[in-house]
Amino acid sequence: MTTQHRATPNAARRKEASRRAILTAAFDLLQEIGYAKLSIEGIAARAGVGKQTIYRWWPSKGAVIFDAFLMLSEGSEGEPPALPDTGDLEADLTAVLRATVAELNDPQYDQPMRALATEIAHDPELAAAYVERLDGPLKEAKQRRLRSAQRAGQLAEDLNLDVAVEMIWGPLLNRWLQRSGPLTAEYADDVVTTALNGLRPRPSGR
Amino acid sequence: MTTQHRATPNAARRKEASRRAILTAAFDLLQEIGYAKLSIEGIAARAGVGKQTIYRWWPSKGAVIFDAFLMLSEGSEGEPPALPDTGDLEADLTAVLRATVAELNDPQYDQPMRALATEIAHDPELAAAYVERLDGPLKEAKQRRLRSAQRAGQLAEDLNLDVAVEMIWGPLLNRWLQRSGPLTAEYADDVVTTALNGLRPRPSGR
Repeated sequence: MTTQHRATPNAARRKEASRRAILTAAFDLLQEIGYAKLSIEGIAARAGVGKQTIYRWWPSKGAVIFDAFLMLSEGSEGEPPALPDTGDLEADLTAVLRATVAELNDPQYDQPMRALATEIAHDPELAAAYVERLDGPLKEAKQRRLRSAQRAGQLAEDLNLDVAVEMIWGPLLNRWLQRSGPLTAEYADDVVTTALNGLRPRPSGR
Repeated sequence: MTTQHRATPNAARRKEASRRAILTAAFDLLQEIGYAKLSIEGIAARAGVGKQTIYRWWPSKGAVIFDAFLMLSEGSEGEPPALPDTGDLEADLTAVLRATVAELNDPQYDQPMRALATEIAHDPELAAAYVERLDGPLKEAKQRRLRSAQRAGQLAEDLNLDVAVEMIWGPLLNRWLQRSGPLTAEYADDVVTTALNGLRPRPSGR
């Protein structure tokens, strides 16, 4: 290992402080003025750095937003995400989906998450990074929970877990992003029940 | 009825021609250069009108894109949209979802549809107009098809049709917009089967 290209401890600390100031400024401005008005100039002014500093570290506005989200999720570093597993799949999914609804409706996250979703929609490279670093680990956690239920005989043996995950979370994300209807706890409950039971009549009690 | 504010026939015809030229230019440019680079200036130049003409008729870039989509759907004017109803719900839904997948993968529509989805995500007023004028009639058609199946005993009696529609179409739209996985005919088939059967084991044959 070589240290010759490493910055001095002080320089590294200053760089990290600037990086955090920029990402925090981007996140705060998204909440305050919204995505359409967010500019690199505005982020630089708020963070107290030069515009060129941002351009040197990030190729686009979307890349800054993405890293702001990564910084937010750094708190849980080390531990991979996990869904609750009480043995009662319907109760666990309902709790998780209600929490998702609450987060999507939280004004603090609404604008930043819309900005990220929108940047992903228009930027295949960012979408790939999102799948790998943020959505991927979360999707694996969801599939782990479903696999555990499948082993317990609570889910169909031949279920495609990839499709199952999108069947549970897709309607929620879609309704939120497209504003196609009210996003409530009741809606989350209905989605869980309908996904588990399916659209066809059930011969048994449930 | 009064005609005193009505433009002369020639003026009305010229105005309509300009309107169509602007909307066509917006749609074409979206395909060619993408949403991020689309500007009112660019649309005006391509359509051969002044920038002020566009600003006089539309409040935002998103409103222009929205009207371009409305113009596209004008061809089917008069007839409300309807889904096929052969009596075989699974076959009908599979056919419709495969067609949706093909449309979402069509390079001609990909960029314009992403642009519309983005504008909707950031503009509650436009989202309301979209629900009322484009998505609403389509959602009613989807619910009509499901209601017909429900009457035939093919769907659960207590099914929430609003949730059912988002359970079938939500995963597709979400996967397309977020690029969370390959959008194929096989995926469409899996979504239909999984939505109809549900995630739980089925006691009966299907």
